[in-house]
Amino acid sequence: MSIEENTPEPDKTERMPLDIERVHALSEALLPVAEQIENNLPVEDETLSAKLVELIAVLHELHPADVAAVLESLPPKERSMVWHLASPEEDGEVLLEVSDAVRETLIESMDKEELLAAVDDLDADELAELAGDLPHQVVYEALQTRDAEERAQVQAAMSYEDDQVGAIMDFELVSIRADVACEVVLRYLRRFESLPDHTDKIFVVDENDVLQGVLPIRKLLVADPDELVENVMATDVVRFRPEDNVEEAAQAFERYDLVTAPVVDADKKLIGRITIDEMVDVIREESEADMLNMAGLQEEEDLFAPIWHSVRNRWVWLAVNLCTAFIASRVIGAFEGSIEKIVALAALMPIVAGIGGNSGNQTITMIVRAMAMGQISGVQARRLLKKEVGVALVNGLIWGTVMGVVSWLLYGSIGIGLVMVAAMTLNLLLAATVGVLIPVMMDKAGRDPALGSSVLITAVTDSGGFLIFLGLATMFLL
Amino acid sequence: MSIEENTPEPDKTERMPLDIERVHALSEALLPVAEQIENNLPVEDETLSAKLVELIAVLHELHPADVAAVLESLPPKERSMVWHLASPEEDGEVLLEVSDAVRETLIESMDKEELLAAVDDLDADELAELAGDLPHQVVYEALQTRDAEERAQVQAAMSYEDDQVGAIMDFELVSIRADVACEVVLRYLRRFESLPDHTDKIFVVDENDVLQGVLPIRKLLVADPDELVENVMATDVVRFRPEDNVEEAAQAFERYDLVTAPVVDADKKLIGRITIDEMVDVIREESEADMLNMAGLQEEEDLFAPIWHSVRNRWVWLAVNLCTAFIASRVIGAFEGSIEKIVALAALMPIVAGIGGNSGNQTITMIVRAMAMGQISGVQARRLLKKEVGVALVNGLIWGTVMGVVSWLLYGSIGIGLVMVAAMTLNLLLAATVGVLIPVMMDKAGRDPALGSSVLITAVTDSGGFLIFLGLATMFLL
Repeated sequence: MSIEENTPEPDKTERMPLDIERVHALSEALLPVAEQIENNLPVEDETLSAKLVELIAVLHELHPADVAAVLESLPPKERSMVWHLASPEEDGEVLLEVSDAVRETLIESMDKEELLAAVDDLDADELAELAGDLPHQVVYEALQTRDAEERAQVQAAMSYEDDQVGAIMDFELVSIRADVACEVVLRYLRRFESLPDHTDKIFVVDENDVLQGVLPIRKLLVADPDELVENVMATDVVRFRPEDNVEEAAQAFERYDLVTAPVVDADKKLIGRITIDEMVDVIREESEADMLNMAGLQEEEDLFAPIWHSVRNRWVWLAVNLCTAFIASRVIGAFEGSIEKIVALAALMPIVAGIGGNSGNQTITMIVRAMAMGQISGVQARRLLKKEVGVALVNGLIWGTVMGVVSWLLYGSIGIGLVMVAAMTLNLLLAATVGVLIPVMMDKAGRDPALGSSVLITAVTDSGGFLIFLGLATMFLL
Repeated sequence: MSIEENTPEPDKTERMPLDIERVHALSEALLPVAEQIENNLPVEDETLSAKLVELIAVLHELHPADVAAVLESLPPKERSMVWHLASPEEDGEVLLEVSDAVRETLIESMDKEELLAAVDDLDADELAELAGDLPHQVVYEALQTRDAEERAQVQAAMSYEDDQVGAIMDFELVSIRADVACEVVLRYLRRFESLPDHTDKIFVVDENDVLQGVLPIRKLLVADPDELVENVMATDVVRFRPEDNVEEAAQAFERYDLVTAPVVDADKKLIGRITIDEMVDVIREESEADMLNMAGLQEEEDLFAPIWHSVRNRWVWLAVNLCTAFIASRVIGAFEGSIEKIVALAALMPIVAGIGGNSGNQTITMIVRAMAMGQISGVQARRLLKKEVGVALVNGLIWGTVMGVVSWLLYGSIGIGLVMVAAMTLNLLLAATVGVLIPVMMDKAGRDPALGSSVLITAVTDSGGFLIFLGLATMFLL
């Protein structure tokens, strides 16, 4: 992919939009003079000075989203230096693009005047998005410079939870009446200095602002100029309420290939719109959150967060893991007598536990994914259970037999081999059953089935696996 | 979210777009007469007949993407019945929306005439997308009905890999010359019957089809009608080559908030465009693939796939897991003498291995994610390693001490407690080191760092944990 400036010699100007390696190299080279740079003191060394000029040039050509990506990827000192060098007029946009963790560090490094300047150009919805992370005094003063309508919009947007449509809707939109001709609409649009980003449709409202339909630009452009809007507009409109969940909205955008959609209040009055770029962020964040949760991280973490921050972000899941490992350990402890007599059990038991955990995670991931896509209703759970138990039985018999034969050859005891086959098959059956039941029950209880499900299933298959294997061995081998 | 038809009484018509529970209930109730339905025989039973009428009505009102979601969520017999009942004119769209696994089952159930009818309305790029799954004879006959240009487009699209921009670009686009007035463009557009989906910009080309810039519709609508296109168009255009990677393209769409972007060949000639709806699918599929891979599933699986299909989809990772578990088991086997003497070791060793795996997965997930966002270059690896080792040291000392004290109290031996502290700390340090190195080395080797990284790190921390703990115990406690 390339961004190209159109110049007389277009071949010379094709360039990659962001050469992050170069930025890293430059900022590392400038680290010794970071303090001078941040205090706006001249850099004496000629080589470094040339590098500084290059870095500034690179940064000023970057899109705010690219500046954000650079900042995310830098350790604290270099991040602070690069942030100081980036174009101040883009500060607000950059703050919107970075992750929450990095945003905090950037805002901490700015004084009140810099913050006020940064948020000055932002729309009401963007200011509302940042407001939670800004000092109260800055938010207050920033609001004073806005008119009453904008203040009300900021306050409205701030009153919704992060996962509600109201928190990400924007207020820049174009609306018209149904009883005018398309020609009139075109003339009306020409009076705007610019149209809002992503304008793919114009909203049609009545005299009370109640949404009547939408006029897609695609239709407007090909319509007969004398045709009335009401004959061209679409009326089966996907619309949202500010209380709606953003993930469900994102799914609707994905399913119906939307670019923008209206947000209406309880009286069906048009109050804002949501756009695909926000929805793409929701989809990305949702899948990242699932991934982080599965790996046992509480939230998105600044790559270069201070060690203590990282420790805090990870300790909950480590603690949970220790508790479940401790329970498994006590299960083994209960069979210490058996292990003393047949020490081979100690070596074989992690195999039984491990394959159960792996297989259980396969099942639970499939179910959680299908639930996220809204594909599972109560009727299905029973059938899915039947299928997963079938898969587990086949896998258990195949892999159990493989490991059973291996253990038999290794320890010369057919009894150990048979216990291995039985224990692996039973633990896989346990994994399949619990792998279906955990997310179904979490969903019924109104909880997010992704959260912690991997830890839960591993806990069950570990303790269960040790219990089954050591129990069978104690029964049949001693 | 609601879709609303505009009628005299709008309050009565607001409805949820897809009531999947209802569809599930109806299709389950109709299961006994599924055969009659599929053979178009009348259903005698009056209750069932009423349900059939309701199901058909519901299905015919659904968007093709909703029909696809319903089909994904149904077991084979009901899926086949619902597929038979869905509007045949939407068959092609539905086939495009379902997952690969379900698409196969649907195509298998259709005869040649049905398939030809289904693909008849599709655009060239859509036909190319389905072509890989269709019988050759159907593709051949479908191509015969197209003109030479479309045939060439289908063949061009089919010549690219699934992860290349060329495979998902479409050919429906509007292009103009730079030296005409905006008024002329508006008149030209009006001659179209309809504009392509997602048209947010018009492509500006010279007489050789070389891309000069783009004219955003937003700018066209507010421009002075007499102004020339070349004075209104944007020239710093994000453009792609058909060989570009789709995930990188999706990242650019996300970063620069694009709705469509041009695709050019080596001579900078405009050959197609890519649209945000395809990019959203790429983002979703990418994150799902990561999640499935982390859980040890090879590919997206049909929820109700035959057991044998599921077994095949899961066996590779189960086999890998068994191998790594076997290695860990042999490590324990080497210390059987020590375990015979102090059987408590058998109970405590899974704790050391478990916390290492958990912590290593936290580290590796952070790194893999930062790499996917293009935030890590060579320079960073060393620093990240330093930070992760610091986090591991803190966590190891804290949790190691907790478990050390617990073991001391439990087994009355301060030696066991001290070995526990040391082993947990060392295994966490190992996990941090390997958690940084594995993805960095995989990336340098040109491989996807997400693939199998979770299995690899768990293998290292399991075997390593057993080795460290049992080794220390053998050295100091015997």
